[in-house]
Amino acid sequence: MKSDSSNDVPALPRLLSTIKQPEDLKKLNRTDLPLLAQEIRDVLISRLSVTGGHLGPNLGVVELSIALHYVFDSPEDKFTFDVSHQGYVHKMLTGRAEEIHTIRTYKGLNGFLLRTESEHDCYGAGHAGTAVSAALGMASARDLVGGKNNVVAVAGDAAFTCGTTLEALNNIAETSKKFIVVLNDNEWSIDRNVGAMAKYFNNLQTSSTYSAVRKKTADIVEKIAGYGARQFAHKIERGAKNLLMPNVLFEKFGVRYFGPVDGHDINMLIDTFSYLKEQEEPVVLHIITEKGRGYKPALDNPGKFHGLGAYKIEDGTTAAASTPTYSEIFGRHLTDFAKKDEKITAITAAMPGGTKLDIFKKEVNERYFDVGIAEEHAALFACGHACEGLRPFLTIYSTFMQRAYDMIIHDIALQNLPVRLCMDRAGLSGDDGPTHHGLFDIGYLRHVPGIIHMQPKDEDEFVDMLWTMANYDDGPTAIRYPRGAGVGATPKSEPQILEIGKAELLQEGTDVCLIGLGEMFDMAVQTKDKLEALGYSVTLINPRWIKPLDAAMITKFASQSKVVCTFEDHVLMNGFGASIIELLHDHDIPTHVERIGWPDEFVEHGKVPVLREIHGLTVEDALKKIQRHLQ
Amino acid sequence: MKSDSSNDVPALPRLLSTIKQPEDLKKLNRTDLPLLAQEIRDVLISRLSVTGGHLGPNLGVVELSIALHYVFDSPEDKFTFDVSHQGYVHKMLTGRAEEIHTIRTYKGLNGFLLRTESEHDCYGAGHAGTAVSAALGMASARDLVGGKNNVVAVAGDAAFTCGTTLEALNNIAETSKKFIVVLNDNEWSIDRNVGAMAKYFNNLQTSSTYSAVRKKTADIVEKIAGYGARQFAHKIERGAKNLLMPNVLFEKFGVRYFGPVDGHDINMLIDTFSYLKEQEEPVVLHIITEKGRGYKPALDNPGKFHGLGAYKIEDGTTAAASTPTYSEIFGRHLTDFAKKDEKITAITAAMPGGTKLDIFKKEVNERYFDVGIAEEHAALFACGHACEGLRPFLTIYSTFMQRAYDMIIHDIALQNLPVRLCMDRAGLSGDDGPTHHGLFDIGYLRHVPGIIHMQPKDEDEFVDMLWTMANYDDGPTAIRYPRGAGVGATPKSEPQILEIGKAELLQEGTDVCLIGLGEMFDMAVQTKDKLEALGYSVTLINPRWIKPLDAAMITKFASQSKVVCTFEDHVLMNGFGASIIELLHDHDIPTHVERIGWPDEFVEHGKVPVLREIHGLTVEDALKKIQRHLQ
Repeated sequence: MKSDSSNDVPALPRLLSTIKQPEDLKKLNRTDLPLLAQEIRDVLISRLSVTGGHLGPNLGVVELSIALHYVFDSPEDKFTFDVSHQGYVHKMLTGRAEEIHTIRTYKGLNGFLLRTESEHDCYGAGHAGTAVSAALGMASARDLVGGKNNVVAVAGDAAFTCGTTLEALNNIAETSKKFIVVLNDNEWSIDRNVGAMAKYFNNLQTSSTYSAVRKKTADIVEKIAGYGARQFAHKIERGAKNLLMPNVLFEKFGVRYFGPVDGHDINMLIDTFSYLKEQEEPVVLHIITEKGRGYKPALDNPGKFHGLGAYKIEDGTTAAASTPTYSEIFGRHLTDFAKKDEKITAITAAMPGGTKLDIFKKEVNERYFDVGIAEEHAALFACGHACEGLRPFLTIYSTFMQRAYDMIIHDIALQNLPVRLCMDRAGLSGDDGPTHHGLFDIGYLRHVPGIIHMQPKDEDEFVDMLWTMANYDDGPTAIRYPRGAGVGATPKSEPQILEIGKAELLQEGTDVCLIGLGEMFDMAVQTKDKLEALGYSVTLINPRWIKPLDAAMITKFASQSKVVCTFEDHVLMNGFGASIIELLHDHDIPTHVERIGWPDEFVEHGKVPVLREIHGLTVEDALKKIQRHLQ
Repeated sequence: MKSDSSNDVPALPRLLSTIKQPEDLKKLNRTDLPLLAQEIRDVLISRLSVTGGHLGPNLGVVELSIALHYVFDSPEDKFTFDVSHQGYVHKMLTGRAEEIHTIRTYKGLNGFLLRTESEHDCYGAGHAGTAVSAALGMASARDLVGGKNNVVAVAGDAAFTCGTTLEALNNIAETSKKFIVVLNDNEWSIDRNVGAMAKYFNNLQTSSTYSAVRKKTADIVEKIAGYGARQFAHKIERGAKNLLMPNVLFEKFGVRYFGPVDGHDINMLIDTFSYLKEQEEPVVLHIITEKGRGYKPALDNPGKFHGLGAYKIEDGTTAAASTPTYSEIFGRHLTDFAKKDEKITAITAAMPGGTKLDIFKKEVNERYFDVGIAEEHAALFACGHACEGLRPFLTIYSTFMQRAYDMIIHDIALQNLPVRLCMDRAGLSGDDGPTHHGLFDIGYLRHVPGIIHMQPKDEDEFVDMLWTMANYDDGPTAIRYPRGAGVGATPKSEPQILEIGKAELLQEGTDVCLIGLGEMFDMAVQTKDKLEALGYSVTLINPRWIKPLDAAMITKFASQSKVVCTFEDHVLMNGFGASIIELLHDHDIPTHVERIGWPDEFVEHGKVPVLREIHGLTVEDALKKIQRHLQ
């Protein structure tokens, strides 16, 4: 048993149970495939109701995944999936159907593709916009060594708002003659009539007659087909806010465009891929799919079912949370601030739901900006706002803020612009795993001159910090805050401006000095209680500021203690504790600093308490480390 | 006297000398402007022959800069310049003509725009692809507060290979109704006939007749004009390898396209801007300019004259270097390795000249990849190569590697792919200033799990390290090396594979332990000599590896010394010395670590020795710090 998550998992349905490897899929008749698709949907809906996961996107790519594996030969042929949250069906078709109930659980299947999980996962991901570029590198490598395999990149329409995807598009025509991009267009507001019309044109484009004619009179036919395709693309364009008119766009990039095609018509997909496989030119296949296909609650609420926790199968309801999350507090209070202060703007890179800026969007719409999955542009756009005296809040998950790193240094910090960096999901993200943990932002920001960086110990202090940031116009500020709910400290009715660089001293002592950053402050409190029960005198500090540190307070209490212990939800290397070591060293204070935080490795996925236990982030670990210095 | 660089600077020519502010420019007759342009060219050519600088790009935008300031009102109207290396003429027209001879010298004008240098520099830059995004932010801010000013972003054709620019384009139509992008197309291979034809169409497009007609029968006229424009754009497209067919492209993005226009016809530019200023829709003006216009050596060799040091005015010759630069050694030896090893590939983001991969391009062309100014795609493309067993060398300046930061973490390190990160211009870059210094790469890489990071003390060791990287397939490696020439250590005929994590011990001592990283090793040697002359016993270590550190050697000699001193060409915070402090702390070694490196601020531009002196990176500074511990 690989996973710790399962008991009494029902057996797999008939057809699916026969598929141990992609070759088994090829043994099925094409007429069986719709039933297989139905089985896969049933399994997804029932298994994910327990584990949670990216249900909607996976229901949308059932037929696509079947068709890819039916036509191509993985692992020789390569499939890259953008973000790869839509890889569950691919996993089920490549020997992992029996384990799908373990998804996102500790030691179970990862919620994304991982090269270490299967030879069929040729490229892992978790952030958007990487699939086309990486696949293009693979196609280039194949061409260099004279290989014959196919390379297929699957990317959603949103990936085409990413600069990386557009950079890749700009390079396709020069890089490889044999390359397939599947544009999986799952904008759910599109006109469903498109499917039938598209079918007609696709039949035209893939028929052998067309192919033969084209060789002789390519120009004329292409113009005709091109004109028709444009008409349909126009329809799609109306629905898909950010999607460019794809045929013209791709043609400009030197990539031949096919589609749009109904992405739920397995036979059509199989025919199309069989045809595209033989082409010796870069092509894009534009398919239209439905997020949440086959499950009414997911169709009715695609945003919620993009990714979620456990739900009731019958109606898709999820358990209501008792404590608001940090994101909810953020969205609510920033919106309230913006109502009082017309200078406040909010910028998100396609994450209104995750960051809860959807509250801001609803209530202060004119100052809300969603720029697409475009963190770099988002940061520069915020700079423009800051240059003109506005107070932009740039809200991006800690791990995705890495995308805007050059802008943080070269544009925000170097120009000392008061952009407010709000880093949601800082610290361990848990189930999503290493692509989503926010464990590096102290390390990558600390050496950038002039950025004030902070982390609140609870929700009330969080709102004070946001208010402090709103009112600080002298340079950039950054705040990190965790996924999920905090300790439940209800914010005061009126927020308070905090003094920058001034830590909070909770109590003074002479044996041990505990410094607990952010939501790890709670672990410091529990450690203090245990130490006091053992008779030790303890100093307890909530540092608040990662930079600038409260050097006066920390050096004072470190000097008078036998040992310091720091707590952080970040890697230890280049982390908060490391900055305390550096501080004490430079002040010639010899007190030893023990550190609780994450090791110098990529931390796997799983529940936060499980991973903390395994990696030594517990009160017991802290006590052990501290007591060495008290004997 | 603001600068330290000048004596006997000739007086400014007649017209230029009258321009203290943009208003003075507006007092000139339009018929005087060609003469002013000539004066500006003369001043640029003569002044930069002494200081060096971005001559070619500035000669290309003389008329553009004059026209912008003639039509618009800076600083109320905002101009952003992409990269901003083409901002010298703008500086001369905004009160800085008298100082242009100080450009790129310590305390003189910066070679790029700086918000702190002038109220007319509304946005600074140094990296590409930021101008459109930031300007769009400014336009959005203006719209929110109900302002009336104009915002103009000037970007070269190469900026449109940047993902950031494409992300911005994708957002223009939704963000602001009043916004001007100038596409400065200076691809020097274009057909010059374009100019005259474009003039005709531009006249059509900007005439009041056209404007009136358009209001009634917009569709028909637009189609006709559109067709014509496409024909010319086709001509341009043939010459401009990476440039998309701009009219169709921009129209797809919802931005109205004007051009192409001769960018050296001042009157045409003035008429066009006067017209565009009144438009209430986002527009792009495509102008064709000539890099190096008006100076034959620059026209003959646009690559060299993009940016260079001092040259002879008569023929543009520059002094030949006596010692090869690190970049030259890199290009030469990597090419030689690639001839022996078919797995080696070289990837650059539009920097074949700067990185000297032009040697590789010439000799191993099929494995050379220039992807445009697209560091993110470059890194992902390298991942694709690595996945397929190739040995990609991703060569990007240290400061530009920040653009690929998320890919370094999320794609390269997390998947443990053997991508070789070659970071040229690591350390202080000197004249170019803070946008180009490579002072953060130790800080941003050290906490990323699994990356081996190194820096050679001289050229011979550099080649050994490159060879070691070539032969290491177990994960990612990174090397940092400085701008310019090293100490002149000729590489051995056969490179040697170095043991990873094993430092080089030059000599053992008991008083002081000196650890000199990379090209700063030389300063450690000089410090050792001085200390020995004073009678102290000195250990001298060349650490080679930033990560993993040679913990055994460093802890051993640190333990037996009274003080350790580290030398690094990097900021001290989160730097190499900080990692030594952390190491010794974790090994309970109380020896104090003094550190020589850059402070926690953005270091200005100037000659490296001058800046080292000012910021305490000298042998004397090291001696002072060390001797405190020897009394």
